[in-house]
Amino acid sequence: MSQRTDFFTRHQELLDRAVEATRSRDHWSPYPESPSKSVYGEDAPERGEQAFKAQLGNPFTLEGHPGDGWVPATESSPYGFELGVTYPRVTPDEAVAAAKAATPAWRNAGPDTRAGVAAEILSRINAAGFEIAQAVQHTTGQAFVMAFQAGGTHAQDRGLEAVAYAWAEQKYHAGSVRWSKPQRKGGPLELDKRFTAVGRGVSLLIACNTFPTWNGYPGLFASLVTGNPVIVKPHPRAVLPLAVTVRIAREVLAEAGFDPNLVLLAAEGQDERTAATLATHPDVRIVDFTGSTAFGDWLEEHARQAVVYTEKAGLNTVVLDSTDDYRGLLGNLAFSLALYSGQMCTTPQNLLVPRDGFATDQGVKTPDEFAADLGTALDKLLGDPQRAAGVLGAIVNDGVLRRLDEAGAAGRTVRPSAAVDHPDHPGATVRTPLLARLGADDTEVYTSEWFGPVTFVIDTASTEESLNIFRETVRRHGALTAAVHSTSEDVLAAAEEAALDAGVHLSENLTGGIFVNQSAAFSDFHGSVANPAAGATLSDPAFVTGRFTTLQSRRPVVVAGGVDV
Amino acid sequence: MSQRTDFFTRHQELLDRAVEATRSRDHWSPYPESPSKSVYGEDAPERGEQAFKAQLGNPFTLEGHPGDGWVPATESSPYGFELGVTYPRVTPDEAVAAAKAATPAWRNAGPDTRAGVAAEILSRINAAGFEIAQAVQHTTGQAFVMAFQAGGTHAQDRGLEAVAYAWAEQKYHAGSVRWSKPQRKGGPLELDKRFTAVGRGVSLLIACNTFPTWNGYPGLFASLVTGNPVIVKPHPRAVLPLAVTVRIAREVLAEAGFDPNLVLLAAEGQDERTAATLATHPDVRIVDFTGSTAFGDWLEEHARQAVVYTEKAGLNTVVLDSTDDYRGLLGNLAFSLALYSGQMCTTPQNLLVPRDGFATDQGVKTPDEFAADLGTALDKLLGDPQRAAGVLGAIVNDGVLRRLDEAGAAGRTVRPSAAVDHPDHPGATVRTPLLARLGADDTEVYTSEWFGPVTFVIDTASTEESLNIFRETVRRHGALTAAVHSTSEDVLAAAEEAALDAGVHLSENLTGGIFVNQSAAFSDFHGSVANPAAGATLSDPAFVTGRFTTLQSRRPVVVAGGVDV
Repeated sequence: MSQRTDFFTRHQELLDRAVEATRSRDHWSPYPESPSKSVYGEDAPERGEQAFKAQLGNPFTLEGHPGDGWVPATESSPYGFELGVTYPRVTPDEAVAAAKAATPAWRNAGPDTRAGVAAEILSRINAAGFEIAQAVQHTTGQAFVMAFQAGGTHAQDRGLEAVAYAWAEQKYHAGSVRWSKPQRKGGPLELDKRFTAVGRGVSLLIACNTFPTWNGYPGLFASLVTGNPVIVKPHPRAVLPLAVTVRIAREVLAEAGFDPNLVLLAAEGQDERTAATLATHPDVRIVDFTGSTAFGDWLEEHARQAVVYTEKAGLNTVVLDSTDDYRGLLGNLAFSLALYSGQMCTTPQNLLVPRDGFATDQGVKTPDEFAADLGTALDKLLGDPQRAAGVLGAIVNDGVLRRLDEAGAAGRTVRPSAAVDHPDHPGATVRTPLLARLGADDTEVYTSEWFGPVTFVIDTASTEESLNIFRETVRRHGALTAAVHSTSEDVLAAAEEAALDAGVHLSENLTGGIFVNQSAAFSDFHGSVANPAAGATLSDPAFVTGRFTTLQSRRPVVVAGGVDV
Repeated sequence: MSQRTDFFTRHQELLDRAVEATRSRDHWSPYPESPSKSVYGEDAPERGEQAFKAQLGNPFTLEGHPGDGWVPATESSPYGFELGVTYPRVTPDEAVAAAKAATPAWRNAGPDTRAGVAAEILSRINAAGFEIAQAVQHTTGQAFVMAFQAGGTHAQDRGLEAVAYAWAEQKYHAGSVRWSKPQRKGGPLELDKRFTAVGRGVSLLIACNTFPTWNGYPGLFASLVTGNPVIVKPHPRAVLPLAVTVRIAREVLAEAGFDPNLVLLAAEGQDERTAATLATHPDVRIVDFTGSTAFGDWLEEHARQAVVYTEKAGLNTVVLDSTDDYRGLLGNLAFSLALYSGQMCTTPQNLLVPRDGFATDQGVKTPDEFAADLGTALDKLLGDPQRAAGVLGAIVNDGVLRRLDEAGAAGRTVRPSAAVDHPDHPGATVRTPLLARLGADDTEVYTSEWFGPVTFVIDTASTEESLNIFRETVRRHGALTAAVHSTSEDVLAAAEEAALDAGVHLSENLTGGIFVNQSAAFSDFHGSVANPAAGATLSDPAFVTGRFTTLQSRRPVVVAGGVDV
């Protein structure tokens, strides 16, 4: 009990500051994003690498975890080697039963204690940042610095953001009150009332291959802090980053006096497909999912006993109307397309350009000229192999390679994708982005998502038509990001209106060091329920309020000599 | 534009106070609940009655409402006469199209303006309280004072409560921010960001026969304030209270410069069943429903394009363990059973009593003795015809009468239901409550809801078994209320734990002027998603956050001479 109090007291200032940041939306992060020895300690990088290497080829142990036996290794690094890690095997029924058994004490602990435990878990995840970065790099293919940031500190930001919303919303209401209603005759009617936040039930996290932590932490922490046990079902190709996370969470829970089975790992063998079984288990009441539209739709259709939060696929769109910084535009966009080989759910796919060209500080640029210039910008960005490797990372799985092959025939290729030799990892699978030209009529091609380094330059009749295509395709097929370039306030206003109609967040005139595919926790919203690409926003109040309910009890005020009503 | 500002300015203090009340949960209401001339004006009662009577037998006009022709009269008073009111006919497609066309200006108006308009609507509904009370009385069968309170001021409270949550949650985030991220080299990265609350889409309110306003206003106002147009689909037997509400809403919207079609009335002829068609319309994105479990489940299953908030049926349960005020207990419970002839979704149905009896200040009472004493308390309460009429009201429809007939054979009747002559309305259908005895094994009988004046005294092996039956039946079948009587703190604690497990709000030891079937806005929650009886709580943050999303736009900060990134 004293330990529980400790974690909340230890992190209360952090929690208050985090809640304030969710409100003000200013820049804020408690987790330094630089993988620097001066911040994290001289030996931190090496210790992290050693911990990662020591795990390779070995069983991953979780003390006191339910289940029996081991799931055979399923992970191989996009940089060219097998991880060979086996994980505890647990059946869906075993996982759910253990999760339910752990719940009552967690419910009764209250939101402060739960938020304190969550903040401590995040603090220890941060301290294990180099180990987790190695695990992220060698399951997702992200380059190391990106794995440390997007898979590490930025994921921690997103986790803490969810903790803040979950904590604040549970404390929206007073915990207790003496209710006193004046009467025309006699004293007031008086009741003592108590209000208790109660979790909805067992929560299931179905994580993805590319961003297991960044997309996984919000649901994990939102559910945990609102009083629910969480079963973590990682993608078979990206288990290790979440296994380390689960181990840390269980350690902190046990130290705080709780059953560590509040956080469970449900690894699965290749093609076992336990996600569907878990998601439709009658006692699973919350599902968080990041992945394909097909399985996301299936979950929304079939996991009827649960509230389901999804992030699926969409058509990220850029409308090009005019610019006074053509060079900045090209450099910024080239980086957005190349970063992690376009394997972000936020990478632009459809670039809409007026057929007659758009005005720039270097003259009018036709769609073909723009496509060629963008190709050149990509060549320049990726010319140096070391730099290219750092930007591109590696290709996460064969599905992306297959799509790249298909994309070669989908439009008129302006810049083909090419294999790149990684300077440090000879076995790595590295590809540069493909650029192709399409017309506004090629809807069959550009209204599908081509997840990976595939981008289309599409000519339209005018900016007005571009905005219409943007509005209609995103409204129908969804998007996680959108951008516009224009020097006209009228066009920017029209683009903002179109984005509100389409239900997507909009970036305008990005030419410098901010990219459309980046979103900063505590300030930028990621995803929106207003278009089909997502059934949740990371994070906002709606992301947490469905995970718990407030129950009350009330009784007459007892006064000396009897009951005062 | 000046008008819009006016309504917000006029009501800002009220809105601030309302938000504070939702947080503190203390007693608060801006709408005086006494139907008194000194509060509402000397001629208010008469003007209300005249307005009601003038409407009888006539078409109900709504200026500028879409559609064509009239829906034939469907309403008859439980007090014995036909209302004969016809309403504008509008098809689902016409209603949805008009609602959508009205939306953009409402979206762009922002939460302050919308909350101000809503508060003004409620203020005018309050001013029309006597007219609406007549309409409620003669559609639901509630006695006049109850119709004025539960159908009037308390419904207004629930409406304002929803406005407060909707307004506060939309303003959780800053409307705009200058985001500034320090860089190791050079000046900070800076972006100007704007955040806009955007409604989910067309909202549908499917209202019920017994509490069209009390159960209807929360969804109506929550949706409206979060930027959504609302189509009101009343129960064919209780149209008028909501028609008057819609007329007032449209008047205020027009005065504020908005399209009145933001609030529409979709009346239907007998057995037209347009609710299903409307609820599955692809552009209907929010559904609020109060009514039968069967149709509530159907909506949750089929209205997949919408977020669905339901209040259905359940097994309201009382656990009797011990009391030091047996007389107070009997009087309180008798009133709860008799109020509005038990036609409240909150009326107790299952009273669980240990087989060997329970301790009271008047000795141990066996289940049979308790049932007999409760029957006597009902006789006493309803002995005077005028008082009986004021408590019981009238039977809302034939379904309740049918169930009363069936209930006569369902258990061992202790106190049969009887017809009562109404002193003022000779044609009124008035019935007293039926009390029957059951055993713990009679699950088939008591795990169904017997909506109306039907209550079972059920003997159990012990209070422990009572709590188990309570926990399991409510967890499985749902409940909107629960109560316990005990002089033991241990039993009360066990009951609180069982109520948290079952997911229901709990009232303890009510023996005075507060009744289990009453819940006060701003302090008591009504319903909970934690058991099957409801998919919503009136009201809490979860009730409003699913109705809108926050969309952002961001652009680099423009400084003198160029862009500062």
